[in-house]
Amino acid sequence: MLVNCVAYQRGEKLSDIPVSEIRANLGRPDCFVWVALKDAEASELAALQEEFGLHELAIEDAQKGHQRPKMDEYGSSLFIVMHLIEYHGSELQTGEVAVFVGPQYVISARRDAQLGFAEVRRRCEQEPELLQHGPAYVLYALMDTVVDRYFPVLDALTEEIEEIEGRIFAGQTTRAQIEALYSLKRKLMTLDHATVPLIEVAGKLHGGRVPPICAGLHDYFRDVYDHLLRLKQSIDNLRDMVATAISVNLSLITIQENEVTKRLAAYAGLVAVPTMIAGVYGMNFAHMPELQWRYGYPVALASMALIDVYLVYRFKKAGWL
Amino acid sequence: MLVNCVAYQRGEKLSDIPVSEIRANLGRPDCFVWVALKDAEASELAALQEEFGLHELAIEDAQKGHQRPKMDEYGSSLFIVMHLIEYHGSELQTGEVAVFVGPQYVISARRDAQLGFAEVRRRCEQEPELLQHGPAYVLYALMDTVVDRYFPVLDALTEEIEEIEGRIFAGQTTRAQIEALYSLKRKLMTLDHATVPLIEVAGKLHGGRVPPICAGLHDYFRDVYDHLLRLKQSIDNLRDMVATAISVNLSLITIQENEVTKRLAAYAGLVAVPTMIAGVYGMNFAHMPELQWRYGYPVALASMALIDVYLVYRFKKAGWL
Amino acid sequence: MLVNCVAYQRGEKLSDIPVSEIRANLGRPDCFVWVALKDAEASELAALQEEFGLHELAIEDAQKGHQRPKMDEYGSSLFIVMHLIEYHGSELQTGEVAVFVGPQYVISARRDAQLGFAEVRRRCEQEPELLQHGPAYVLYALMDTVVDRYFPVLDALTEEIEEIEGRIFAGQTTRAQIEALYSLKRKLMTLDHATVPLIEVAGKLHGGRVPPICAGLHDYFRDVYDHLLRLKQSIDNLRDMVATAISVNLSLITIQENEVTKRLAAYAGLVAVPTMIAGVYGMNFAHMPELQWRYGYPVALASMALIDVYLVYRFKKAGWL
Amino acid sequence: MLVNCVAYQRGEKLSDIPVSEIRANLGRPDCFVWVALKDAEASELAALQEEFGLHELAIEDAQKGHQRPKMDEYGSSLFIVMHLIEYHGSELQTGEVAVFVGPQYVISARRDAQLGFAEVRRRCEQEPELLQHGPAYVLYALMDTVVDRYFPVLDALTEEIEEIEGRIFAGQTTRAQIEALYSLKRKLMTLDHATVPLIEVAGKLHGGRVPPICAGLHDYFRDVYDHLLRLKQSIDNLRDMVATAISVNLSLITIQENEVTKRLAAYAGLVAVPTMIAGVYGMNFAHMPELQWRYGYPVALASMALIDVYLVYRFKKAGWL
Amino acid sequence: MLVNCVAYQRGEKLSDIPVSEIRANLGRPDCFVWVALKDAEASELAALQEEFGLHELAIEDAQKGHQRPKMDEYGSSLFIVMHLIEYHGSELQTGEVAVFVGPQYVISARRDAQLGFAEVRRRCEQEPELLQHGPAYVLYALMDTVVDRYFPVLDALTEEIEEIEGRIFAGQTTRAQIEALYSLKRKLMTLDHATVPLIEVAGKLHGGRVPPICAGLHDYFRDVYDHLLRLKQSIDNLRDMVATAISVNLSLITIQENEVTKRLAAYAGLVAVPTMIAGVYGMNFAHMPELQWRYGYPVALASMALIDVYLVYRFKKAGWL
Repeated sequence: MLVNCVAYQRGEKLSDIPVSEIRANLGRPDCFVWVALKDAEASELAALQEEFGLHELAIEDAQKGHQRPKMDEYGSSLFIVMHLIEYHGSELQTGEVAVFVGPQYVISARRDAQLGFAEVRRRCEQEPELLQHGPAYVLYALMDTVVDRYFPVLDALTEEIEEIEGRIFAGQTTRAQIEALYSLKRKLMTLDHATVPLIEVAGKLHGGRVPPICAGLHDYFRDVYDHLLRLKQSIDNLRDMVATAISVNLSLITIQENEVTKRLAAYAGLVAVPTMIAGVYGMNFAHMPELQWRYGYPVALASMALIDVYLVYRFKKAGWL
Repeated sequence: MLVNCVAYQRGEKLSDIPVSEIRANLGRPDCFVWVALKDAEASELAALQEEFGLHELAIEDAQKGHQRPKMDEYGSSLFIVMHLIEYHGSELQTGEVAVFVGPQYVISARRDAQLGFAEVRRRCEQEPELLQHGPAYVLYALMDTVVDRYFPVLDALTEEIEEIEGRIFAGQTTRAQIEALYSLKRKLMTLDHATVPLIEVAGKLHGGRVPPICAGLHDYFRDVYDHLLRLKQSIDNLRDMVATAISVNLSLITIQENEVTKRLAAYAGLVAVPTMIAGVYGMNFAHMPELQWRYGYPVALASMALIDVYLVYRFKKAGWL
Repeated sequence: MLVNCVAYQRGEKLSDIPVSEIRANLGRPDCFVWVALKDAEASELAALQEEFGLHELAIEDAQKGHQRPKMDEYGSSLFIVMHLIEYHGSELQTGEVAVFVGPQYVISARRDAQLGFAEVRRRCEQEPELLQHGPAYVLYALMDTVVDRYFPVLDALTEEIEEIEGRIFAGQTTRAQIEALYSLKRKLMTLDHATVPLIEVAGKLHGGRVPPICAGLHDYFRDVYDHLLRLKQSIDNLRDMVATAISVNLSLITIQENEVTKRLAAYAGLVAVPTMIAGVYGMNFAHMPELQWRYGYPVALASMALIDVYLVYRFKKAGWL
Repeated sequence: MLVNCVAYQRGEKLSDIPVSEIRANLGRPDCFVWVALKDAEASELAALQEEFGLHELAIEDAQKGHQRPKMDEYGSSLFIVMHLIEYHGSELQTGEVAVFVGPQYVISARRDAQLGFAEVRRRCEQEPELLQHGPAYVLYALMDTVVDRYFPVLDALTEEIEEIEGRIFAGQTTRAQIEALYSLKRKLMTLDHATVPLIEVAGKLHGGRVPPICAGLHDYFRDVYDHLLRLKQSIDNLRDMVATAISVNLSLITIQENEVTKRLAAYAGLVAVPTMIAGVYGMNFAHMPELQWRYGYPVALASMALIDVYLVYRFKKAGWL
Repeated sequence: MLVNCVAYQRGEKLSDIPVSEIRANLGRPDCFVWVALKDAEASELAALQEEFGLHELAIEDAQKGHQRPKMDEYGSSLFIVMHLIEYHGSELQTGEVAVFVGPQYVISARRDAQLGFAEVRRRCEQEPELLQHGPAYVLYALMDTVVDRYFPVLDALTEEIEEIEGRIFAGQTTRAQIEALYSLKRKLMTLDHATVPLIEVAGKLHGGRVPPICAGLHDYFRDVYDHLLRLKQSIDNLRDMVATAISVNLSLITIQENEVTKRLAAYAGLVAVPTMIAGVYGMNFAHMPELQWRYGYPVALASMALIDVYLVYRFKKAGWL
């Protein structure tokens, strides 16, 4: 689905144009076209391919989706894939955006993602002195936005682990906690796989041999690169904490088992000792003076009770009950 | 066994030819021969070795099999080994294909694998404008197909772990689950060992000093390279999840043990308490008024039952039963 | 908040100046201005940006905070971010200082940290022959101080783990110990994240292509680099020891459980055996000679006691009690 | 002990010669001497050192043994150390062979290893067209043989782990299995330490700056290199599987414990319930009608038996017995 | 404390000289001074600094101690720090030696270590043809000695782990064993931290851009480098074995717990079954023919004993007792 197709000249918006008029617009000096697609169909991509001479393999990748974030150079143009991560309920959903950047065009084809880039376009149009840099600046603006949107996801995951930690150390070492840690690990992986390959992409855009089309925007792409590094470090942290939490949890479960065993033993003791005493007075010896005592029975019951009271006191002191 | 031997000129199929006529055909301009072998015998390889001047060490490798995926350059020709992975029942079977690529020939020798490459040949013959690139394009087509066939295997393994996870979190932490995780780990290793060395091969074919015979197909081999990276990342994911699943499983087993202990203790309590009461009324004191009561016995039984009912209620509330 | 703004000429302090007179001072030969800010407001940074022509992205980073330690080169000037780590109670708090270094200025903007750099300025002013090196020397002095302040934190963490180890091996394998190890791991991460990216920064300042502004201070930055490496190694040590302590702790907990099980079993034995004997003499056989004995009852009690004494002796010898 | 000392010319064996005639033989064109030593004594090495001008540090290494596999270049000559791994009973024994290679000589000094290299010499002498390449070809032949002898060791270790796995999953999670895994890990380490440094050596002999003496044998050393990589990968596999087996084994042990606990509890139940019933009928109430019944006693016994039969049935169904 | 100060000319010892005559001696051709210090005081270092023009940062490092092993180049002179590891009782103690090497001097300043380098000096003086190489050769001799002294420490640690393994597999899985493993891990770390950074130092002294002062000693430093690599590999081995031993130990502890549980259950059974039988004959049924039998009582006792004998037999066979 075509979302937008706008021509810009020297950073200023000219007008919304239909795809068929793209070629006419490209003739003007310092002009470029910015096309936005959503869940593009094969025919739409084919039309653009013909219009801009896009490479067949890039088109194929954009159409099939499920790519790893990457940057491919085809001659003087670039093809970039980034992941878009959104929360659907408590699960993460990975969409992707494929961006084609050439000297006179930039095409963003979003797939499987709710949130679009209308806001990016609006901000760019408000800063024509920056948009003058051309398609590469649009690429930067898109990358910056994509990466910025990873941070709230990271924050949510950070909160999640803190909550799980809280419950674990409060003694709730149940299946639910373990399942939550496991699922958290999965989500971190999703975020990690969006981030790590993109670091490589951002690295190629600001250091070493920068593709000519991005020359001059060095500082901007380095900024994106820094953000990605920060993100990566936080993700690694969280992964490490999840792994530690899993192993710590096992220790806590074992401690808990230990405590349960002790409590059970204490209760067993409270029953076993009176049983033994009762057994003694159930013996059939002919000469058992206590049996004849007037208050033998209540004394026996009382002594059972007393011993249990004493045991409860001892067990409580030892922390078993 | 010789599967095919076909001569091509400028991307067009000339004809099926016997091995003995290869030399005659190589004289024509822009012509190359594509030979496909299956479980080749020593004599067949020897014949081709003489025909094309293949290096002895390459022939040895192709014959012995059990190679690691690799690419060796011998002068202007290439020798490439790739693993072919197929499901035999629930187990993975590793076959391999050795590909010799020279300026006028491409030979693929498949071994221990059911599925052949007839379909690749068919597709190539339908696109003569691409097949014009010569033997290197055939190499690309073969590599692309081999790599594409890894994905369904990966998908099956992904499904396998999801199924195991499901069973684990449903509380089925039995030997069978552990054995399944262990076997999954093995299969992931098989896939990993097919993939990782091939990444290196694909890397050498699209970046840095590309072997001259593959020059100009840079974008195609990069595409294979991207697919392999994606595969690698997914494999790493799965390995990580398997490791986590094993450690999480241990926690769940320990929790389960805990639960069993508690349930057993509950049942023990249900038996021990009545036993104690019975013990008390089994004592032989001369003066035990209850013993003389008309309804002493039923009251005793009833109190035992009541206490057990109360205990069951408490245990259920505490989640022990 | 502006803390200081001082002009220096050939390493000697000229005078405290208001921000508005900066430009006038920069005209003098061999003169530079050293500005210190604390929790700077947007307006203060904006004023300095205009005065010194600082890059917008650097200003943005300094203002937003929460950066990863890094060094960005903007033309001939540098922008450096370092973490400041302070103890707040038993928790670590991460602040940061952003340093802008240009040919004629050095600006340090501290954020979320109590301890300032007045002491650095004092020491620098006492060594005018070193301060002659200009803004880059101030950068060195700041870096050196920041890094030196990491060492007491490291020492505190080292003490913490030694204390935990002591308690663990003394048999106190409780929740508190596990929680302490977990929290220690977190703190080590905080320190690690301050250190590792800074190693990269210090590396760029003493080896390979050193930014021109820092040329000639090679030996000084290498010294900082060495300190950071030492720090890194100690942190890695501690992390490794924490991981080992967690796994060792699990073994100790399991051993403890084992011991508890044995002690419980011993106590159970002390109750069960007399109960059995009592049961025997509670049997109703018509011919049980012991029952008629004059001292049958005391003998029975004594034998119970004797057996228990013997069991206690055996259990103690076996280390169960 | 001197094993052999033979002079070769243009790949053809001239004759066995005594050490004293070496110098005379080296005068001939295209001639080289191949000396084989076993557990060489200091005096023998000293004699050769003088004859060929070997470097003192190399001689020292060959004499002391216990070196890491390595290659040292001394001017135009090479000194190579490789590990020889043999089974002594069920343990691995590491010997080593030091090879000195110069323009006109190759000396192999084997130490602590049964199996020699007579067979290598025989094969070389049968292929004079290859032996013409001179000492470097002998080095290749030795390396190839050493590496080929690692494979049967690897196969034995692979079998060992499969056997252990079999026993583990068959429920035999005993000390013996754990000890076997531990010992397997040790053996893998031995093999790993023979392999990994040799990869580096083989790498230097086929890629980058190849020592001049080995120039032209590039393809042969790459073949050795490929074998070593394959070996390395298999070793890594096995190590990974051993680690996984250890952790999986712990899970299985815990499951086993769980099962034992349940079986014990079942047996306890079979005893406890009749005991409780007996307790009830041991009570001394005046009015207990059952006690007067003609068949009260057999009915009581029968009900005990019946309950136990029922319990056995339930426990079996629940998988506890 | 000054240990020695000796002037050498062309490898021959001239004489012991006081510090004050150093300058005079340096005037002679091919002459250098070798100074040895122990726990040097600030004043001593200051005197030497002035004499030889040592860099301030190097002096600071030598004085403060607690450095990481490293090599710093200051112009044409080198500053090297190495760790000295000695056993104090069963603990490892880390001292260090700082070595300043210049064209005409070598200064070794040892700190916190008992064992000195007098023996190195003696050996060097006996080989004047080697000592002719000048200060760099002394550096080599010192490094070689320091590294050689690591090996006995490594051997002691190897023995330690073998002893622990022996005890663990003999079933002594107690706290003491775990504490020993933990402490061993610490010691390995100490050795590792002495070794790893020194590998880097030795690497810089024999490959790539070698500091001019060490040129020509390439083979000697490579020898040290090889020793360090061997050491590193052995340390890594031991670390790996310690980690495996810890995890294996946990399995053994759990198995042991399992065995204890079974033994306890067996004993419980031996008590519970007679108790049940006694309970049965303690029932008060009016018609219990056995009770009237002449030998009812002894038969009951005998049957209890028989059943227990049978149980003991069964338990022994099942390996529970």
